[in-house]
Amino acid sequence: MKLLIINGPNLNMLGKREVDLYGELTYDELCQKISDFAKQHNVEVDFYQSNVEGEIINKIHSAEGIYDGIIINPGAYTHYSIAIYDALRSIQIPAIEVHLTNIYSREEFRRKSVIAPACVGQISGFGYYSYILAIFYFTKGEEV
Amino acid sequence: MKLLIINGPNLNMLGKREVDLYGELTYDELCQKISDFAKQHNVEVDFYQSNVEGEIINKIHSAEGIYDGIIINPGAYTHYSIAIYDALRSIQIPAIEVHLTNIYSREEFRRKSVIAPACVGQISGFGYYSYILAIFYFTKGEEV
Amino acid sequence: MKLLIINGPNLNMLGKREVDLYGELTYDELCQKISDFAKQHNVEVDFYQSNVEGEIINKIHSAEGIYDGIIINPGAYTHYSIAIYDALRSIQIPAIEVHLTNIYSREEFRRKSVIAPACVGQISGFGYYSYILAIFYFTKGEEV
Amino acid sequence: MKLLIINGPNLNMLGKREVDLYGELTYDELCQKISDFAKQHNVEVDFYQSNVEGEIINKIHSAEGIYDGIIINPGAYTHYSIAIYDALRSIQIPAIEVHLTNIYSREEFRRKSVIAPACVGQISGFGYYSYILAIFYFTKGEEV
Amino acid sequence: MKLLIINGPNLNMLGKREVDLYGELTYDELCQKISDFAKQHNVEVDFYQSNVEGEIINKIHSAEGIYDGIIINPGAYTHYSIAIYDALRSIQIPAIEVHLTNIYSREEFRRKSVIAPACVGQISGFGYYSYILAIFYFTKGEEV
Amino acid sequence: MKLLIINGPNLNMLGKREVDLYGELTYDELCQKISDFAKQHNVEVDFYQSNVEGEIINKIHSAEGIYDGIIINPGAYTHYSIAIYDALRSIQIPAIEVHLTNIYSREEFRRKSVIAPACVGQISGFGYYSYILAIFYFTKGEEV
Amino acid sequence: MKLLIINGPNLNMLGKREVDLYGELTYDELCQKISDFAKQHNVEVDFYQSNVEGEIINKIHSAEGIYDGIIINPGAYTHYSIAIYDALRSIQIPAIEVHLTNIYSREEFRRKSVIAPACVGQISGFGYYSYILAIFYFTKGEEV
Amino acid sequence: MKLLIINGPNLNMLGKREVDLYGELTYDELCQKISDFAKQHNVEVDFYQSNVEGEIINKIHSAEGIYDGIIINPGAYTHYSIAIYDALRSIQIPAIEVHLTNIYSREEFRRKSVIAPACVGQISGFGYYSYILAIFYFTKGEEV
Amino acid sequence: MKLLIINGPNLNMLGKREVDLYGELTYDELCQKISDFAKQHNVEVDFYQSNVEGEIINKIHSAEGIYDGIIINPGAYTHYSIAIYDALRSIQIPAIEVHLTNIYSREEFRRKSVIAPACVGQISGFGYYSYILAIFYFTKGEEV
Amino acid sequence: MKLLIINGPNLNMLGKREVDLYGELTYDELCQKISDFAKQHNVEVDFYQSNVEGEIINKIHSAEGIYDGIIINPGAYTHYSIAIYDALRSIQIPAIEVHLTNIYSREEFRRKSVIAPACVGQISGFGYYSYILAIFYFTKGEEV
Amino acid sequence: MKLLIINGPNLNMLGKREVDLYGELTYDELCQKISDFAKQHNVEVDFYQSNVEGEIINKIHSAEGIYDGIIINPGAYTHYSIAIYDALRSIQIPAIEVHLTNIYSREEFRRKSVIAPACVGQISGFGYYSYILAIFYFTKGEEV
Amino acid sequence: MKLLIINGPNLNMLGKREVDLYGELTYDELCQKISDFAKQHNVEVDFYQSNVEGEIINKIHSAEGIYDGIIINPGAYTHYSIAIYDALRSIQIPAIEVHLTNIYSREEFRRKSVIAPACVGQISGFGYYSYILAIFYFTKGEEV
Repeated sequence: MKLLIINGPNLNMLGKREVDLYGELTYDELCQKISDFAKQHNVEVDFYQSNVEGEIINKIHSAEGIYDGIIINPGAYTHYSIAIYDALRSIQIPAIEVHLTNIYSREEFRRKSVIAPACVGQISGFGYYSYILAIFYFTKGEEV
Repeated sequence: MKLLIINGPNLNMLGKREVDLYGELTYDELCQKISDFAKQHNVEVDFYQSNVEGEIINKIHSAEGIYDGIIINPGAYTHYSIAIYDALRSIQIPAIEVHLTNIYSREEFRRKSVIAPACVGQISGFGYYSYILAIFYFTKGEEV
Repeated sequence: MKLLIINGPNLNMLGKREVDLYGELTYDELCQKISDFAKQHNVEVDFYQSNVEGEIINKIHSAEGIYDGIIINPGAYTHYSIAIYDALRSIQIPAIEVHLTNIYSREEFRRKSVIAPACVGQISGFGYYSYILAIFYFTKGEEV
Repeated sequence: MKLLIINGPNLNMLGKREVDLYGELTYDELCQKISDFAKQHNVEVDFYQSNVEGEIINKIHSAEGIYDGIIINPGAYTHYSIAIYDALRSIQIPAIEVHLTNIYSREEFRRKSVIAPACVGQISGFGYYSYILAIFYFTKGEEV
Repeated sequence: MKLLIINGPNLNMLGKREVDLYGELTYDELCQKISDFAKQHNVEVDFYQSNVEGEIINKIHSAEGIYDGIIINPGAYTHYSIAIYDALRSIQIPAIEVHLTNIYSREEFRRKSVIAPACVGQISGFGYYSYILAIFYFTKGEEV
Repeated sequence: MKLLIINGPNLNMLGKREVDLYGELTYDELCQKISDFAKQHNVEVDFYQSNVEGEIINKIHSAEGIYDGIIINPGAYTHYSIAIYDALRSIQIPAIEVHLTNIYSREEFRRKSVIAPACVGQISGFGYYSYILAIFYFTKGEEV
Repeated sequence: MKLLIINGPNLNMLGKREVDLYGELTYDELCQKISDFAKQHNVEVDFYQSNVEGEIINKIHSAEGIYDGIIINPGAYTHYSIAIYDALRSIQIPAIEVHLTNIYSREEFRRKSVIAPACVGQISGFGYYSYILAIFYFTKGEEV
Repeated sequence: MKLLIINGPNLNMLGKREVDLYGELTYDELCQKISDFAKQHNVEVDFYQSNVEGEIINKIHSAEGIYDGIIINPGAYTHYSIAIYDALRSIQIPAIEVHLTNIYSREEFRRKSVIAPACVGQISGFGYYSYILAIFYFTKGEEV
Repeated sequence: MKLLIINGPNLNMLGKREVDLYGELTYDELCQKISDFAKQHNVEVDFYQSNVEGEIINKIHSAEGIYDGIIINPGAYTHYSIAIYDALRSIQIPAIEVHLTNIYSREEFRRKSVIAPACVGQISGFGYYSYILAIFYFTKGEEV
Repeated sequence: MKLLIINGPNLNMLGKREVDLYGELTYDELCQKISDFAKQHNVEVDFYQSNVEGEIINKIHSAEGIYDGIIINPGAYTHYSIAIYDALRSIQIPAIEVHLTNIYSREEFRRKSVIAPACVGQISGFGYYSYILAIFYFTKGEEV
Repeated sequence: MKLLIINGPNLNMLGKREVDLYGELTYDELCQKISDFAKQHNVEVDFYQSNVEGEIINKIHSAEGIYDGIIINPGAYTHYSIAIYDALRSIQIPAIEVHLTNIYSREEFRRKSVIAPACVGQISGFGYYSYILAIFYFTKGEEV
Repeated sequence: MKLLIINGPNLNMLGKREVDLYGELTYDELCQKISDFAKQHNVEVDFYQSNVEGEIINKIHSAEGIYDGIIINPGAYTHYSIAIYDALRSIQIPAIEVHLTNIYSREEFRRKSVIAPACVGQISGFGYYSYILAIFYFTKGEEV
């Protein structure tokens, strides 16, 4: 199983700023934690981060035939990028939308996702563990 | 670790109706799957289901001092029960809101949760696995 | 043919108060009139009244396999109980929403029903005759 | 007893199109079914159909002194014709608004009626039986 | 000076119904009062009443080259007939919108006019005197 | 007959600025024209202009027992001064709201009046003739 | 004089949680303070607390003929329970809505009450003294 | 191939007024230009213009079996005539909505079409060429 | 203890007009009743009434260091005077907002207060007793 | 004549996915069809596709002085890219907005275009023929 | 060069209250700082502060012919005083709206200005330096 | 002191188009004027212009540790780029939002900024002097 982890705008700044909100974990440490967990579960993960809406779309398009699933944290694009929503609908790979923070506990404008309807589901509020849960779903999703 | 799983209105009808939407899993089978997973992870789980908003509130109040976490699927109350939101805020046990279906892919009125801001986070769209992921978070949440 | 007549919050107060709005007919007299009409048309009717949203849901669930139709006056729950809407969708018995008064001639907030989309139809404004018409539909609905 | 049955825009196309939505009954068959039922109950019925908002208003005005009641299916005018609402208020004949389909189960804009507040009540969702129920109310409305 | 007085839907019913709202003056008496006043001021007036939106538009179009001004009471069309608004803009004759009742003292939906922006001005609330004031403006409008 | 003419904020600037919108008539000339017309019709008029919302209210209160009618151009207060609305309702003198320009042909926020419901009616768009028409109504309003 | 004090959802948790918001007074201490004050003023008070919307409605119905007044803190139901609003309108006992905190100083959704229109008035923001003021009104309301 | 060109309210006034907005082309010249183009492409075209909403509906109904396509410029009815929308859905002939001007560049209320969802598509802003493009689509639509 | 009682626009007209709404008590009698009650409780009260928003603000500013509390009935300014809201926030004296009538039982626009968030609380609907309750709170607020 | 055809986000995926919505035509085939048609009409066309909002803006800027017209399908950016709207306004080349599908027949959020007001017009719903019609307009737009 | 600095409601309280929001600078110190800067740049400044909306309007009117520019901090009137907006439009002196705090970082209702459209521009968020920047613009605005 | 001047979409087109709106100053001349002023005040300025939202974000991220302040004109992104808002919050450099034109005097959608809450303040409407004022604030902000 091979998963693509897409991180949207400003996630590269993780751990540097707004530590009270997002925690002290840096972007690299986030990736490391996710990699470690993935490795334990025999999952191959590739990371992609971009602040450019259109490049995220390009990456989504290019995932077809290569990955079994996408885990995407669209950052602020969550709230207005209909283009990313369309991109996820244009491919056949299942995607999961994740958020580090609980989007329901912040500014009013963060409470809605225009992208989630194109995903299997949404996991929000568990810090880096939002990604872990998404991987866990992809790996074990069929069994129990 | 001991968790309380609260299921709100109409979840007792699971597997009997609207199979195309919610799947064929019955409520008992849902509980069984969750129990099995919990046992594997050395978690004790208690189940509570009620269609009465106020009884769900009573149950939440009584959880204090007994459980380490609450997993709640508030069903339709998700969208208007400020009273359940207040109940979760009135206790100190962390709670996770879960949904079987992706609430972003259904009727417009299901897209908002008035309860989620009182929770650690929300997991939506993974069928019974939404509960599994919540348990997994509670049991492993601190480590990796 | 066996029908279940469900009356929601405050309908037990019928005939006691707000006589200018709801008329002088008491709840018992309402039931008697409905029973008389039903008997004339060889229909068996059971009455259920509750002020508790969740108990109405319980009753709806329990109707499966017993009744051929439900006539429901959800009272104030008409305007916000998505949970009752879900309950009616969770069973296979056809339901008709009835109202004593014309919900379009009162306060603005009474003009919408969140429950009606789960029903065959809605009959509003004919006093106790709203129930009579619903029974008449169930008994003769197929012929003419 | 003499009733006027007014049918608004596009009801003349009944049975010809959108059969999956409105059924296979043609407009003439609808009138025949209503006539048969009316005859059984000793009610005289006249039919009027027009696609022109203003002609419907003319007809409503001319009904005074001739009919004991009006049954009106305003079609799409239901949702915006304040002029028909005013017309019904300008006469003293009681009117009932009827709809073949359940207006709550279709497009969002069909959920409101600007005409219903000028009527005794509204019956929606019972196919041609919506008219039958209205006649039944007019004929038996006082007794039981 | 020659003026065209256009009365929209339901104004033909004046004096017959809703006397508490519109007064006991009949449509004919209204016209007589306006005629008398016009004669006193050497103004020729023609009256036109229709309940059909499109016929009112036809009349407006045909006024060009014949009348020096239009006084229009669009009745309920005031609130939604963009088509009449366009009709008044398509000719070069100045028009005045009049209302018998104060449109600000009634239902919420009567508070806005989509037609008034195509008029010189609006006079609302003075009973038949709304028309008188409009004539007075046309006759004396330039002097003092 | 004695009338009070109240002019609200910025009307003292008439004729000095925004001549393309309000015309070249100065505030003094406006008053003169109104006085001339009033004298011709044996009406006594007093003028009051203030830019202070509360002083306008004071003036309205003090009118009781002195004036037979009020003509008020509330200027920008038209659109938000519920206090002036209340003031007009607190006295028994009939009032007419007037506007120089057609409030429906300008910015969106000028289209609504919170004061008009406390008045007999509203006259809008006739320049200084809006006042003339209001006086004419007061003097001849009963006859014809 | 005999008063019924109804407390809605989550008020039983008073003093246990969210102390910074609601204060350290427990529900029992609240009742005691109210009782002490009532006794001083020769008023008999009964307390009722429930988290179930429908049970609060039942209690309201049963108050008729027993109590001279109702003091109700509807908790979160304040903001959406039209059913409790209807219940208060269905009886003839005067009711006062009270809130411990100032509902205008909290979340946006707490600023409106759907229940208050069915009450004599509303007292909000004075901690347990909101109840005291309500009792004081009932006992001295007529005199001074 | 035979097409029906329907023009709604006020299009008969074309070229006479608002020349800066709609151009100097008269209605007859518009028809001539369309006819010429149609003839070149071996298409038969019939023209119908009416200011009456209901007559447009009548025409649409009568088109079945006679025409291969409808080109409709609903004028102001574009923005509120759900009845015309229903009429187009009640027949099986494909329709194209056209507008002379770009509806997105004018008043806010012109930006939405309630009729377009019943059409194949919409062409807006190309003057008489909007009709030409629609004919071109009908004639060549299948090939290239 | 020394309190300042501020009454906003139109309260000087109390008892003169709209007696069915506000009662027959005049403004002077209102002050007298409040004074009597205050004297009984050893509270010194000063009264201030103004119809001018800015003068009310001036008075609020000048209260600092002189009064222990403010009781304010902002009249119509309740619904839009952010400036008074700011004024109350600019001082350190606790304020209570009072209303004679129940603001929830009147026009829609009276249901919200922009000033209440700057107050300790709000008391609405008890006639002159709204002021009495506020005084009672200030005098006894700490004890029981 | 030389035209620039700009295709926005996800149009490169054409024919690969959502075939039921967009058809089986691939992006390359779309371009080929457009080229063929253009060649027949002696029009030179250049194609540009990008998923990046800002690159589309760059392309629009660079078109000045090179192209006689722009045909743009902004994809999802249609609904929120004010930046592209500004870009089209910053150049003097006429532009036409095209859409493969009828934007009025899909999700609610697709019904509005923020870009169309900067264009000559909009063509929506004709599949690849939307582009053809735009070219046809550019080539023949002046004649007939 | 001579400038008028107008400060609206509550700015006289500067430095006394809400120091965490507005800083410790008093109103007099604010004026002093502005004066010092003005003197350095050879600008004469006059200060005017009022809490009364109408007096601010009076001051604006009286500025004509005396001042070369106005710097206005309308305080809370920023958000609703259409009357001050009209006043600024009624004169020909350029005005600049300034705010001490960033109006975008506070309550939702502070985010809009109804006055700014009548000004050259708006400067918000720089403490007393907002005034300094406005003066700097007036003095150097033409050069560089 | 070293400042970064970021210009968003379409600002590169300055002086070429829409000269009546933005003036004749080209982008290069704008930069030159800003540079000249900066040099006079011993400020080093770097310019960055991009039409790509994500590249602007990249630039903002890279500013940390290099610049003492950011002056950003986000162009159309002002109104919807939550991603740029997040970017500015992710760094610790103070930023000022500037606009050439007064955003309050243009289209309705330009009146709100989603980015300004992440800035020290906003300067809007002073042409290139908006940048000058921002530099002036940075250089002199602390003194006077």
